[in-house]
Amino acid sequence: MQNSPIGLMDSGVGGLTVLKEVQRLLPTEKTVFLGDQARLPYGPRDAAEVTTFTRQIAGFLQQQANIKMLIIACNTATAAALATMQRELTIPVVGVIAPGARSAVQATHNHRIGVIATTGTVKSDQYRTTILAKDPHNDVISLACQEFVTLVEQNDLNSEHARAVVQAGLAPLLDQDIDTLVMGCTHFPLLRPLIQDVMGAGVTLVDPGTATAKMATSLLDYWNLANPEGVRHPQSDYYTTGDVDRFNELADNWLEETPVRAQHLSLTALTHTTEVN
Amino acid sequence: MQNSPIGLMDSGVGGLTVLKEVQRLLPTEKTVFLGDQARLPYGPRDAAEVTTFTRQIAGFLQQQANIKMLIIACNTATAAALATMQRELTIPVVGVIAPGARSAVQATHNHRIGVIATTGTVKSDQYRTTILAKDPHNDVISLACQEFVTLVEQNDLNSEHARAVVQAGLAPLLDQDIDTLVMGCTHFPLLRPLIQDVMGAGVTLVDPGTATAKMATSLLDYWNLANPEGVRHPQSDYYTTGDVDRFNELADNWLEETPVRAQHLSLTALTHTTEVN
Repeated sequence: MQNSPIGLMDSGVGGLTVLKEVQRLLPTEKTVFLGDQARLPYGPRDAAEVTTFTRQIAGFLQQQANIKMLIIACNTATAAALATMQRELTIPVVGVIAPGARSAVQATHNHRIGVIATTGTVKSDQYRTTILAKDPHNDVISLACQEFVTLVEQNDLNSEHARAVVQAGLAPLLDQDIDTLVMGCTHFPLLRPLIQDVMGAGVTLVDPGTATAKMATSLLDYWNLANPEGVRHPQSDYYTTGDVDRFNELADNWLEETPVRAQHLSLTALTHTTEVN
Repeated sequence: MQNSPIGLMDSGVGGLTVLKEVQRLLPTEKTVFLGDQARLPYGPRDAAEVTTFTRQIAGFLQQQANIKMLIIACNTATAAALATMQRELTIPVVGVIAPGARSAVQATHNHRIGVIATTGTVKSDQYRTTILAKDPHNDVISLACQEFVTLVEQNDLNSEHARAVVQAGLAPLLDQDIDTLVMGCTHFPLLRPLIQDVMGAGVTLVDPGTATAKMATSLLDYWNLANPEGVRHPQSDYYTTGDVDRFNELADNWLEETPVRAQHLSLTALTHTTEVN
């Protein structure tokens, strides 16, 4: 089991921001990533459907790669399915909301925290409740920015159009006196320069992926799951249910370990894997 | 249970270096600290005896304070008793060696890591095995510096005598080409300026306490154990089996939250607590 990879899943390429941090902190661990672009975006779907998708992907990663840990590198899927997956799976399952909430609580000084996320994550209200569960003396202002996901998946990260979308999306937060903003969707850190520009230098941007990779490291060490025979910087395996070329292009832009050569995974194969278990 | 404190234990005041970091990262969590000065040092004792002491202290902290997590803020006790305590207790039990080993693996560039610790920790060989379990491509050079514990417990942190003891103790490491040195005893960070001076600026000193506090934070968040009603910077409770005035003096020197008013705990009361369970 210690030799097995860590599995990461997302609705798209956003989770690669978490993968990159895992690769940096754990350079001798194998990783396998699955992006479910065929069913992207998860944000507007209801929680039960997202849980079903998450269960299918976890099943595939366990059967295909015998993963020793699952990182749900997607805020929407974390909000919808983390508790269920932790109950159903025997391996550790790490989500992005708890570490992101902790980072926000530690970063804020004026205790006014903004959260931008998908519709589904905002609707779940989990960032607010999780932040308050760690420190009730905070105000949390949440805002859905669903359209940011589309920008990232289209690799439209710094055009005039992208800037206008980000500017309009963030406008409701500009007079809220927040000093900390959680990028509560793993796609959003790819838009970080634009977001920082719009929010201004006085707002600390929190990338939950960074803290998630640290939590994964702690859990790996707590349960003695580190790979004792790890070579440095092993090639990761990538699967996408969507377009392979687009996935590779986005991943090559974002990751240092390149070129990425993802394998296509059909939805039929993905759902079949789970059903036969 | 979420309202309960985090318990920390050490043979003496060294564990306060871990407590300080826990207080910094988790400012709304209650903490309770027990220093077993009456039986200090643990370093030269055998593992079975240290395990018995650790079990007694864990029992006391559970009964007295209903702790929700135990941090063994002592390398000797971690080496001797962590696995046993994790098996016997139903609360999470965090030791300092795994996080310290991880920090060392992440800090080193030339992959030659020194470890200074007590006789017991060095004899256990656990830093070497834990470091290699995370990344086998490292050389680990261990050295017992038992006498450093005495300096710290006597509050002798920067006299000429202290400098001479540290100089002599570290001498065997000076020609070993290490670029990273683990302070593998929670007492040693109090001697950090002297140790850094002797080792030179080119050697990165690793304080496992820092990483331990991060692991404790991750576990707290993973299991939803954070205190949702926490006030900021609550006063900690302190117990010592040794001299209360000396404990308070050392703690006041080291911690920011002062003055410390420890309660004395007799060994009779400590061992009785455990036996009646």
